[in-house]
Amino acid sequence: MLEALKEEVCEGNLALPRNGLVAWTGGNLSARDKETGYIVIKPSGRLYEDMKPEDMVVVDLSGKIIEGDLGPSSDTASHLEVYKAREDINSIVHTHSRYATAFAAVGKEIPCCLTAIADEFGGPVPCAPYASIGGKEIGEAILSTIGHSPAVLLKQHGVFTIGPTINKALQAAVMVEDIAHTVAVAMSLGEVISLPEDEIAANYDRYTNRYGTVNASQGVSNV
Amino acid sequence: MLEALKEEVCEGNLALPRNGLVAWTGGNLSARDKETGYIVIKPSGRLYEDMKPEDMVVVDLSGKIIEGDLGPSSDTASHLEVYKAREDINSIVHTHSRYATAFAAVGKEIPCCLTAIADEFGGPVPCAPYASIGGKEIGEAILSTIGHSPAVLLKQHGVFTIGPTINKALQAAVMVEDIAHTVAVAMSLGEVISLPEDEIAANYDRYTNRYGTVNASQGVSNV
Amino acid sequence: MLEALKEEVCEGNLALPRNGLVAWTGGNLSARDKETGYIVIKPSGRLYEDMKPEDMVVVDLSGKIIEGDLGPSSDTASHLEVYKAREDINSIVHTHSRYATAFAAVGKEIPCCLTAIADEFGGPVPCAPYASIGGKEIGEAILSTIGHSPAVLLKQHGVFTIGPTINKALQAAVMVEDIAHTVAVAMSLGEVISLPEDEIAANYDRYTNRYGTVNASQGVSNV
Amino acid sequence: MLEALKEEVCEGNLALPRNGLVAWTGGNLSARDKETGYIVIKPSGRLYEDMKPEDMVVVDLSGKIIEGDLGPSSDTASHLEVYKAREDINSIVHTHSRYATAFAAVGKEIPCCLTAIADEFGGPVPCAPYASIGGKEIGEAILSTIGHSPAVLLKQHGVFTIGPTINKALQAAVMVEDIAHTVAVAMSLGEVISLPEDEIAANYDRYTNRYGTVNASQGVSNV
Repeated sequence: MLEALKEEVCEGNLALPRNGLVAWTGGNLSARDKETGYIVIKPSGRLYEDMKPEDMVVVDLSGKIIEGDLGPSSDTASHLEVYKAREDINSIVHTHSRYATAFAAVGKEIPCCLTAIADEFGGPVPCAPYASIGGKEIGEAILSTIGHSPAVLLKQHGVFTIGPTINKALQAAVMVEDIAHTVAVAMSLGEVISLPEDEIAANYDRYTNRYGTVNASQGVSNV
Repeated sequence: MLEALKEEVCEGNLALPRNGLVAWTGGNLSARDKETGYIVIKPSGRLYEDMKPEDMVVVDLSGKIIEGDLGPSSDTASHLEVYKAREDINSIVHTHSRYATAFAAVGKEIPCCLTAIADEFGGPVPCAPYASIGGKEIGEAILSTIGHSPAVLLKQHGVFTIGPTINKALQAAVMVEDIAHTVAVAMSLGEVISLPEDEIAANYDRYTNRYGTVNASQGVSNV
Repeated sequence: MLEALKEEVCEGNLALPRNGLVAWTGGNLSARDKETGYIVIKPSGRLYEDMKPEDMVVVDLSGKIIEGDLGPSSDTASHLEVYKAREDINSIVHTHSRYATAFAAVGKEIPCCLTAIADEFGGPVPCAPYASIGGKEIGEAILSTIGHSPAVLLKQHGVFTIGPTINKALQAAVMVEDIAHTVAVAMSLGEVISLPEDEIAANYDRYTNRYGTVNASQGVSNV
Repeated sequence: MLEALKEEVCEGNLALPRNGLVAWTGGNLSARDKETGYIVIKPSGRLYEDMKPEDMVVVDLSGKIIEGDLGPSSDTASHLEVYKAREDINSIVHTHSRYATAFAAVGKEIPCCLTAIADEFGGPVPCAPYASIGGKEIGEAILSTIGHSPAVLLKQHGVFTIGPTINKALQAAVMVEDIAHTVAVAMSLGEVISLPEDEIAANYDRYTNRYGTVNASQGVSNV
């Protein structure tokens, strides 16, 4: 069942090592099938190099396995909490990508000091309090902290990103590591200050509402 | 139209991820067609792995789209300001490459503390003041700051590089990240000091006027 | 002899450069054949790109070469000491991977400040005192320090990891570098603090006893 | 002429980008033909991806071009000074590899704080004083500083490595960057101290005289 989505979820998971976001079997990506409401997620403890679409696990929102020969990711319960609470979210990515997780390790948000951060996250990337793995706690910590950002750090743990599509959740996972690396280096070079609120808002609006969507006939002056 | 240049511009854009300078859809490269005066530029919000020559967008200097099914890069207005003001520039690269952007994040120039920086940039890589994205401001900030350097940082934003050819603009984008990485590490190891002015001038002159251009018959003693 | 194991050991050694853990001829992986008790190990001073299964060297626990055209790794004596003392260990990896070795260079353990460290190592990654290369000293330093961790740092030298299988020893080598990188960056960003003991124990138990082993029929609620 | 050596020198130069030691056209490797005394060296300003054996340039020790359609590397004069003074050296590598050059930028040697540094360099990697590019000065700075180390840093410039063979000069170039990265990180984590002199000597002796050269029939106890 859900063969097309399994293929997309497998492909999305394989994008994690290709973008340098995960080590060994770490990290996972899931997506929601809008028709059935089922979630397709990476299996637990499988090496990326051996992963195939048929290894993906289908679960319902209560966590019951609908289809799959392997166990679902050990982070499945956290994903489900988020899907249950936010109908606008159709894909979730979890990684321990190194620079973003370094901010999480010390429980600090990533300050909105660059236009790229304003564009993508609309403010600082927030850091949720520590929560135990395996139950509802992580989902709750994500939901109470993430706001309108597509990414949230989880203290002493790692990163969760969300999106209306697999592509958007992946983009947030790639971008949060990219800007975390830049900001970590910047902090060693001098004082990092936030952009003014109005500049953050202007960048976020331009990027969210108009970037990549311009109709060619309108020309650049409208971009 | 401009099929050969579209191919070169596409190839130049693909060199950005290959050299580790961009993440996701970030960054862009454009070039000027000398005959028509038109600019060929990367489309907005397109993943590099899917990019083809026919996706490139042709605009005139006023920003009017001459040809292209996709919208042009959201940084097109900034590119155009630079092309309008500087006829010697035929290609522009914009990235958020991590180490160079870390210097930009804290608004600091990259000091000319290495022969490679003197060779390539003829002095420190300057940092322009913050400017809003989308209009003429970034172009003006670049022009008032860049001087004879082929690269300029833009405060709390990223890097722009320029050149008389696509190859030269790309070279500056690769080299500014390379030396930014080296200098950021050096600053953690000790005090970084600038080369003396006469050494900077001698290196810049040798590299700019004679490097790679020696006629084999002259021999090494003339290099 | 032991053709299948030689192939696995060769493949395991080739995973070291593929995971960015070694430079030039550095690093080595060995495994024990349970039936004969012999150890199969990487040859000394061989470039990874030229390495083939038939280059692997077979030694007995006293260090006598049973089969092999090349000399065994110069770290063979250290491997043998560990195999002699710990029958549960069937594979050993040694690297100078950069971030883990940076902690070793200053003789510091990697603090257990992230869930991933609790999962994989069940506490901080300990650092053994300096020991001379070539004899029994390194094996002794490893054994007296490693405890239940699958990885140990060796002061001013590098990293040793162990496992019941090649895969597990490799996993520890990959993960120790991953978390060392993250923690080194975290330390530049703020104060790194350890997880509480009960959280470390809960994570370690979940990861060690249940991760990747869930029977699909049980569903997520049991994970 | 010297077709076999040109192929080896080309292959050696291509190992530089493959090992992450150079950017754009930076860096160069040369080798001496023992019979004729001629030096084969990388051409000036050529992109690595386009480089072929027939592009290599043959010069004599006075710098006269014996064969080659392109100009020789702009660092040729520095290479020649070293070849003239040291008959034991048959290959030289020059790079601006990032972490080693960061030490050079601040004019500091890389302390011998790890067994891998003792093995490969027999002590700290020394840093020669600044010297102007293009004439004899760099060769002189290298010769007066390098001692028995196969690598030397050049203040505010980069790295030179030497060897009796192309392979050995390359190995030193790879290893100096590897240990520079490790030590730079270590310095951010705590106090880096040198190994005792007798440990340095013991490691250097073992590695130089016995590593990778053991006859299999001797067994491990002699390693």
